[in-house]
Amino acid sequence: MNNKPTLHTSLSPALLHLYDLSNSVVVIIDVFRATSTIASALYNGARCVIPVDSVPKAIEISKNIGGIAAGERDGQIAEGLQHGNSPLEYTRSFIENKTLVLTTTNGTRLLQMALDKNADTIISGSFPNLSRVVDFLIAEKKNVILGCAGWKDRFNLEDTLFAGAVIQRLKKQFTIHCDSSLMAETMYAKHKNDLVSFAPKWTHYHRLVDRFGLIEDIRYCLTNDVAGVLPVYTNGMLVAK
Amino acid sequence: MNNKPTLHTSLSPALLHLYDLSNSVVVIIDVFRATSTIASALYNGARCVIPVDSVPKAIEISKNIGGIAAGERDGQIAEGLQHGNSPLEYTRSFIENKTLVLTTTNGTRLLQMALDKNADTIISGSFPNLSRVVDFLIAEKKNVILGCAGWKDRFNLEDTLFAGAVIQRLKKQFTIHCDSSLMAETMYAKHKNDLVSFAPKWTHYHRLVDRFGLIEDIRYCLTNDVAGVLPVYTNGMLVAK
Repeated sequence: MNNKPTLHTSLSPALLHLYDLSNSVVVIIDVFRATSTIASALYNGARCVIPVDSVPKAIEISKNIGGIAAGERDGQIAEGLQHGNSPLEYTRSFIENKTLVLTTTNGTRLLQMALDKNADTIISGSFPNLSRVVDFLIAEKKNVILGCAGWKDRFNLEDTLFAGAVIQRLKKQFTIHCDSSLMAETMYAKHKNDLVSFAPKWTHYHRLVDRFGLIEDIRYCLTNDVAGVLPVYTNGMLVAK
Repeated sequence: MNNKPTLHTSLSPALLHLYDLSNSVVVIIDVFRATSTIASALYNGARCVIPVDSVPKAIEISKNIGGIAAGERDGQIAEGLQHGNSPLEYTRSFIENKTLVLTTTNGTRLLQMALDKNADTIISGSFPNLSRVVDFLIAEKKNVILGCAGWKDRFNLEDTLFAGAVIQRLKKQFTIHCDSSLMAETMYAKHKNDLVSFAPKWTHYHRLVDRFGLIEDIRYCLTNDVAGVLPVYTNGMLVAK
């Protein structure tokens, strides 16, 4: 008898409704850059990250609690904010013991969707905290949904490749009947040793590098385990477990 | 100046709304098995294929015009019908000069969605008519949406691999900034010489082969250019152009 938990990959927020989240761990994946930034901030000592869906809400909450309001829209620091969605901004000297109130285009929206669909547990993942995500999923022994944030509901490769990285590391412990997962794992297996040189072919790369010169952000977001922390959503905030 | 038309791949009907169909050729892709069956029937001399969204409608229309009512639900011949969605059923001796009224789980629904979104031109494609699809798209010089029918809105590999086959053959004639298309082409490049041996890993294969023994259908649907016809949608029916 097969008692392994199941794993599915949702390639876009517009496909999340196809999966039962109620008894599952949902991994929010927004490699460029929300979930890389969340890992960076928590790894460098932020008390917590409060994800919110609008700039006014980020400003209001950060005022009330004395936190840092930050976020982006379409790849740039959002109007009215002083801090953006770059993981490199959140060094220890800047963020330690502070609360980050973060609004982003795709990742925070997907997290809200997972909440609305009564996910059992929500964590966030990206290459900088890959191993912590994998270790947690194996230890939990619950069903898993890898939720790619995409770009405005479109499929993207960076989130899919991260899903593939997770799948390659834990597939023996899960039952996986899911073409999205098989594709993600296949793409990752093909490109795992050349992610940074593959990246210039991705649409999001052009948005971030050609328009804003953010090549160092790209490199950070694609580097394994440089921010070994596990962000878990609880009581409205992501905290390091 | 780049005057090449654009090409995008929609990985699921639930993602079709992200693309502008109004000045585009939309290719309906439902490899297992609607668009393989449509190619087979038209190649073998069917007058036309009328896609409909329900079994009662298939029965009513076929009675009125003296056609063949056919279709499947969940991989089996739909209740109340005598003919299913197997391309191998539609031999020349059976279908020549007849009209096929076809209802299927995914392909006919996606076609209706493309109509509702005012697609400029709708054609259908699968491996059996790959070259005809490619030749038509190159000749038209219009923007292209490769529309994967998936399975009940889930991503599937067979439709994605067909999209990749098309892209590999015409990418020099199009502007392609689309991660879905890049992924589809990469997956196809990796597996183009072993599609039939890769197929047992796909969810739809298990549905069709383990449950219904349809391995010959699978082989047909994955064979290039055995039904070299171009189905074009016009006035409520698909006809061979």
